[in-house]
Amino acid sequence: MPIRNIAVGRPEEATHPDALKAALAEFISTLIFVFAGSGSGMAFNKLTDGGATTPAGLVAASLAHGFALFVAVSVGANISGGHVNPAVTFGAFVGGNITLLRGILYWIAQLLGSTVACLLLKFATSGLGVPAFGLSSGVGALNAFVFEIVMTFGLVYTVYATAVDPKRGNLGVIAPLAIGLIVGANILAGGAFDGASMNPAVSFGPALVSWSWENHWVYWAGPLIGGGLAGLVYEFIFINQTHEQLPNY
Amino acid sequence: MPIRNIAVGRPEEATHPDALKAALAEFISTLIFVFAGSGSGMAFNKLTDGGATTPAGLVAASLAHGFALFVAVSVGANISGGHVNPAVTFGAFVGGNITLLRGILYWIAQLLGSTVACLLLKFATSGLGVPAFGLSSGVGALNAFVFEIVMTFGLVYTVYATAVDPKRGNLGVIAPLAIGLIVGANILAGGAFDGASMNPAVSFGPALVSWSWENHWVYWAGPLIGGGLAGLVYEFIFINQTHEQLPNY
Amino acid sequence: MPIRNIAVGRPEEATHPDALKAALAEFISTLIFVFAGSGSGMAFNKLTDGGATTPAGLVAASLAHGFALFVAVSVGANISGGHVNPAVTFGAFVGGNITLLRGILYWIAQLLGSTVACLLLKFATSGLGVPAFGLSSGVGALNAFVFEIVMTFGLVYTVYATAVDPKRGNLGVIAPLAIGLIVGANILAGGAFDGASMNPAVSFGPALVSWSWENHWVYWAGPLIGGGLAGLVYEFIFINQTHEQLPNY
Amino acid sequence: MPIRNIAVGRPEEATHPDALKAALAEFISTLIFVFAGSGSGMAFNKLTDGGATTPAGLVAASLAHGFALFVAVSVGANISGGHVNPAVTFGAFVGGNITLLRGILYWIAQLLGSTVACLLLKFATSGLGVPAFGLSSGVGALNAFVFEIVMTFGLVYTVYATAVDPKRGNLGVIAPLAIGLIVGANILAGGAFDGASMNPAVSFGPALVSWSWENHWVYWAGPLIGGGLAGLVYEFIFINQTHEQLPNY
Repeated sequence: MPIRNIAVGRPEEATHPDALKAALAEFISTLIFVFAGSGSGMAFNKLTDGGATTPAGLVAASLAHGFALFVAVSVGANISGGHVNPAVTFGAFVGGNITLLRGILYWIAQLLGSTVACLLLKFATSGLGVPAFGLSSGVGALNAFVFEIVMTFGLVYTVYATAVDPKRGNLGVIAPLAIGLIVGANILAGGAFDGASMNPAVSFGPALVSWSWENHWVYWAGPLIGGGLAGLVYEFIFINQTHEQLPNY
Repeated sequence: MPIRNIAVGRPEEATHPDALKAALAEFISTLIFVFAGSGSGMAFNKLTDGGATTPAGLVAASLAHGFALFVAVSVGANISGGHVNPAVTFGAFVGGNITLLRGILYWIAQLLGSTVACLLLKFATSGLGVPAFGLSSGVGALNAFVFEIVMTFGLVYTVYATAVDPKRGNLGVIAPLAIGLIVGANILAGGAFDGASMNPAVSFGPALVSWSWENHWVYWAGPLIGGGLAGLVYEFIFINQTHEQLPNY
Repeated sequence: MPIRNIAVGRPEEATHPDALKAALAEFISTLIFVFAGSGSGMAFNKLTDGGATTPAGLVAASLAHGFALFVAVSVGANISGGHVNPAVTFGAFVGGNITLLRGILYWIAQLLGSTVACLLLKFATSGLGVPAFGLSSGVGALNAFVFEIVMTFGLVYTVYATAVDPKRGNLGVIAPLAIGLIVGANILAGGAFDGASMNPAVSFGPALVSWSWENHWVYWAGPLIGGGLAGLVYEFIFINQTHEQLPNY
Repeated sequence: MPIRNIAVGRPEEATHPDALKAALAEFISTLIFVFAGSGSGMAFNKLTDGGATTPAGLVAASLAHGFALFVAVSVGANISGGHVNPAVTFGAFVGGNITLLRGILYWIAQLLGSTVACLLLKFATSGLGVPAFGLSSGVGALNAFVFEIVMTFGLVYTVYATAVDPKRGNLGVIAPLAIGLIVGANILAGGAFDGASMNPAVSFGPALVSWSWENHWVYWAGPLIGGGLAGLVYEFIFINQTHEQLPNY
């Protein structure tokens, strides 16, 4: 995330080879992440004949998403910054760390990567359904909305503290692991209530491939608000903290 | 934890912008940690209709707390030191690594962060109970007291060895992971007996929100004694070890 | 993986002491990896009397393979590059990062290591069967083929991004962990369908020792195609990206 | 492990303050490790009324031991080298990396640490039994012996490759994690057959406190042979590899 304080970008930026390679990296990272993540949900359905989630199933979902996101962020880190998530890209944008044009390019790549992962899963399983995100019984859209806001706030705050903050130091080494495992941890909480997406791309691919859009807005609005809020808070409170203070005459 | 051998601090310290930002960082880190940790307990209750803990449930609790604490310590490390735990702050205080005033500020931020996390969980789940820490059947308060002392000793000893010790070297890179995973490991042991808190803030929020204070003192006295002991042992035996020896004429 | 752009190698290379030590390191790493990985499958069979895989069983397989591969790659990294997988070696070869001769030596060492691990497991368990990889009910060879291609693409792409790419920087520190955990994550998806091998050596040892070759070609063709593809994509798109551009007069 | 090629040591070494502090560090690290590890076994027994191990139980044991050993090695690394295991100390001794006297001191500290951990567990659980290591039904002492040899070979080989080898480089950062997780992985295999100790101290404490010595020799002979073998192989094949070759006139 090397671009700071440039809010829009020049038009030619989006077709620059580096921008296209970064978009390709986002596409591949998101594909790897969603293939393991959504695939683990399909594996649970196969092993339990579509039974209700259990604590062991939640652990499996947590590890699949946590481990795979750690890897997806790692492999993209030096090429695209390893966002793998439209909410992370949006959080980077509101903090002035990515231009609008590059951000749009990332969004397209992320949504495509998730969709292709779901199509590959559908094909590799002879047409099993790719489970779309939805609300558990007794959970309203507003409840899920709050879950997604809080959990994505934590995720994007983690991205900022470990990967964007110029004074991150050694934290940069474990940044991808922290980013992956906060998602793994949050799934163990929110997964039983609303699936714990924290990532519009993760929700979009399964929704498109299984054509299931009920309450889909929650999985966009929640992560974007939570991620945007984290970007604002971290950028303007904690990163500004590090600027040298001018002497006060 | 940059402040050494200053036992009280000047009054203006507590209102210094850096101190307030550090307190805000403690508040956010504790909120992230407790949201995933207590949330995982609520998820278990939802999935099992409030059934008794099982080995799979203990694994879920271990990973939720271990992963989330790793992240919470990471994101706070460069701003506040990433205590996320009044017992860690107390252990830092008895070893002379934080002033009394800043320590009190951290405690307030940690307790507030835990409380807000529990309120958000209650709201996001339409009012489900936030499970307070308590003793399993056959476990007395004295038993739990010993559990908390020993487990928190291990936790704060880990903080000292990997994050405070001036000769920690490369260990600093994995310090947040070690701090998170010793809690994850201890939950797999003590979780079946007393919930394995090791952290008064983690116990305080659920107790306040669900107004359930039975044996609550155990979750303050145990961690503070264990953490304080670890701070004394490590500071005065192992850190002093590194001081250059004066020539012995 | 220090050898770049040398496609075949000199004949004496294969008997050079360093090459033999590298092969020995591959043998030991693969033995350690397969002993824990296949051993975990035998443990599941023992504990469940050969019952069908469950989500908890998938978690056990994921952690056993993910943790053990992380270690196997780590311990071999400085001696042989820590391939531990014929598909990784093939991916390195197609990208020009290992010679043909050394690659063949690695393959022999990896297959031997896996076979010896399975023989040791058979002996240590008084002759229990070492479970060979195979297709779950409802899964065709073509399905499994796609699974292995996609999952091994992700694995070898991870090897390139974190361990081969000259601009990997700090990612090198966590490369072995990323390589291990992408396998752990993919097992949680593909494990329920085709066992999720991603590694011909991992499939070969059990097939040989239990003499069970049904659909065995899938576990060679899939990983080699996926791994080769990843090597080509990463080497020619992303690594070339880093070459300085000559001025265009 | 700073001492190389000194086989015995001077008598005063054992009472040197640094040696005593190193022994204290081994005592505390082993206590932390065994408290979580054996405690997780007692938690399983409590939650299942002493039922037979299940895959979920094996996962719990794997994570408790893997995470806690990672931490125990980390916190001891800069003071004592973080052996936490008589087999590691023995492997260091046969490779010439620790003196006999200091090694004996470490053994005493490790056995004491394990014993005190078991006594604390017994007290904190109002006298529940601390489960001693033993053979599952259908497993003979010779089987377990082979399991312990192979698994401890992998463990001590990992110690050498990541923490002793002078050319370990960046691997040193993740050495404690690799050491912890190879134990976690091996428990998922051997745990169902012989408990997967790989560590005489881990077996000694529970055997002493529950006074249960059947087949106890297996848990000494296996780890010491496997660990010693790993020390010899790594030291004399792979570490010598790094010595500059004298010109061959």
